[in-house]
Amino acid sequence: MDLVNDLILRAARGEPTPRPPVWFMRQAGRYQKAYRKLRERYTLPEIVQNPEVCAEVTLLPVKALGVDAAILFADITTPLYGMGVDLSLVENKGPVIHNPVRDEKGVEALRPLVPEEAVPFVLETIRILKRELPVPLIGFAGAPFTLASYLVEGGPSRRFLRVKALMYGEEALWHRLMEKLTEAMARYLRAQAEAGADLLQVFDSWVGALSPADYRRYVKPHMERLFQSLRPAGVPVIHFGVGTMGLLEDMKEAGGDVLGLDHHTPLPWARALLGATPVQGNLDPAVLLAPKGVIRREVQRILKENGGKSGHIFNLGHGIVPETPEENVRYVVELIQEVAA
Amino acid sequence: MDLVNDLILRAARGEPTPRPPVWFMRQAGRYQKAYRKLRERYTLPEIVQNPEVCAEVTLLPVKALGVDAAILFADITTPLYGMGVDLSLVENKGPVIHNPVRDEKGVEALRPLVPEEAVPFVLETIRILKRELPVPLIGFAGAPFTLASYLVEGGPSRRFLRVKALMYGEEALWHRLMEKLTEAMARYLRAQAEAGADLLQVFDSWVGALSPADYRRYVKPHMERLFQSLRPAGVPVIHFGVGTMGLLEDMKEAGGDVLGLDHHTPLPWARALLGATPVQGNLDPAVLLAPKGVIRREVQRILKENGGKSGHIFNLGHGIVPETPEENVRYVVELIQEVAA
Repeated sequence: MDLVNDLILRAARGEPTPRPPVWFMRQAGRYQKAYRKLRERYTLPEIVQNPEVCAEVTLLPVKALGVDAAILFADITTPLYGMGVDLSLVENKGPVIHNPVRDEKGVEALRPLVPEEAVPFVLETIRILKRELPVPLIGFAGAPFTLASYLVEGGPSRRFLRVKALMYGEEALWHRLMEKLTEAMARYLRAQAEAGADLLQVFDSWVGALSPADYRRYVKPHMERLFQSLRPAGVPVIHFGVGTMGLLEDMKEAGGDVLGLDHHTPLPWARALLGATPVQGNLDPAVLLAPKGVIRREVQRILKENGGKSGHIFNLGHGIVPETPEENVRYVVELIQEVAA
Repeated sequence: MDLVNDLILRAARGEPTPRPPVWFMRQAGRYQKAYRKLRERYTLPEIVQNPEVCAEVTLLPVKALGVDAAILFADITTPLYGMGVDLSLVENKGPVIHNPVRDEKGVEALRPLVPEEAVPFVLETIRILKRELPVPLIGFAGAPFTLASYLVEGGPSRRFLRVKALMYGEEALWHRLMEKLTEAMARYLRAQAEAGADLLQVFDSWVGALSPADYRRYVKPHMERLFQSLRPAGVPVIHFGVGTMGLLEDMKEAGGDVLGLDHHTPLPWARALLGATPVQGNLDPAVLLAPKGVIRREVQRILKENGGKSGHIFNLGHGIVPETPEENVRYVVELIQEVAA
């Protein structure tokens, strides 16, 4: 299907648009009644491995909210199964890794990712979506550090002590792990672009745990390689992180066509720092639980902070939280659409 | 006892010193064998309410490490009992509030704090310490937002949805809660200074959860009042927060003689932003679990980043984690002392 609305592609290229495009991380999720209905019949992995259902879930927010982009429904751990990782997704907790990677044996046991064999269902979902979507489709992957922190910690972490102990204590092994994950995610993202994804987003959700010095030494070289290897895919790539104000300059240098900001990073400061580089963000997801007057005030603040500058994709600073009223998400889309009215 | 070493007072006033003073948040804690021994006989509240034992615990790191300051041993929730809060401290979890504050009734039920009646044991501990300490003593309190987030959330939080819902949904009530907490902490801190504390630290550990816009609207006015009301105490005040790079300029304007930085905030950037205002920090606590070579590299990086500028108090970006080997903490002190050797 031809694109009816390519706002996000133009914004990602820094071109002027009548209004910022808007979409939301986790726009398909538990805050939606229709999604909760589907989850009564399928687990998350079952949805992801069933292209017809997965396409339907991906389309839910496009139809219900009128957002300017769809994002493939999947989990950042989806490709890890294909690398030999034994994991399960636990509700309200996240991934639990049954064979955490904490030594040479663990790193060597990670198999190279062959997307066509490991995640054919993801590529099929993309092909189905490209036949139906009026707006661009975003493919995505977890960034090497964020995936490594799950693998080494064994699941979500608050203090990241194990992953930092590996970084500091066995640097060569750390870089070997990061190389494997970087190569795998490069293949995974390129395969999504080849299957039809119009943009890609790299989620470095936990990289904000690092000091800038640690980012430069232990992560940045791998991110440079990742973004270089995505160039041939020929689609804009959004480079997103949480708690990354202190890393933003290095993240920009590492690569990505658009920098995704969380709500801790002042938008005016970021735009000044990043120059012409487009940005995405950055409403606090908690604002979507506030009264409409506060939502309006905060959306307008962010639009004002951007000052009408080209290359702004409106989004939250992180994903929609499950407690969010659906009407409040729709309300934000309406507020953004008012800008061009 | 007269001060033998006043390095931290000079640094807090921005005066040149032969080397940065060094102390560590949570320098008395579970990483210490002697502390663990004492905890076999006393709970944390029992220690805090027993001045002789509390002074002994406060002195442990001064004697064992040779740090340049002691910090009163207590918990940021210590004064809350005196305001009518029913709470318990749960190991590895933190405070659990049995009567969380989520409405008008809860806010009005909070009693004004009369330190001499509510926490006489804290003041007595300070008097004992001032008779024994060769180095300055730091008193401290939790900042209003950080305490409010415990009270409203009912304990530690990852997403802070309840406290933000109160801020956004019942702003007048929110400001009433913050006024009560600000007044209480001002009294608590002034009483510690009057009892002999040489410096004070305000711990705004969770304020980094807010966007800069929210900090300015819902928190900054109260912090301004807090720091204004501490001026008569006539001692330097350290204003510390975690995840606060995006708030730093506003925190500086709110007040405090020294800004405490976490390890996410680049030190050179902070010093440029803050001008002559002294800073404290900012080694990642996880580095203390690394091999000595990495510890030395990271300590020297921070010293180099500060570039010998006056007004630098060396510290971690947050508290010492319990898994830390004691010898590594001592090693950092030695590395800092080498600077003036």
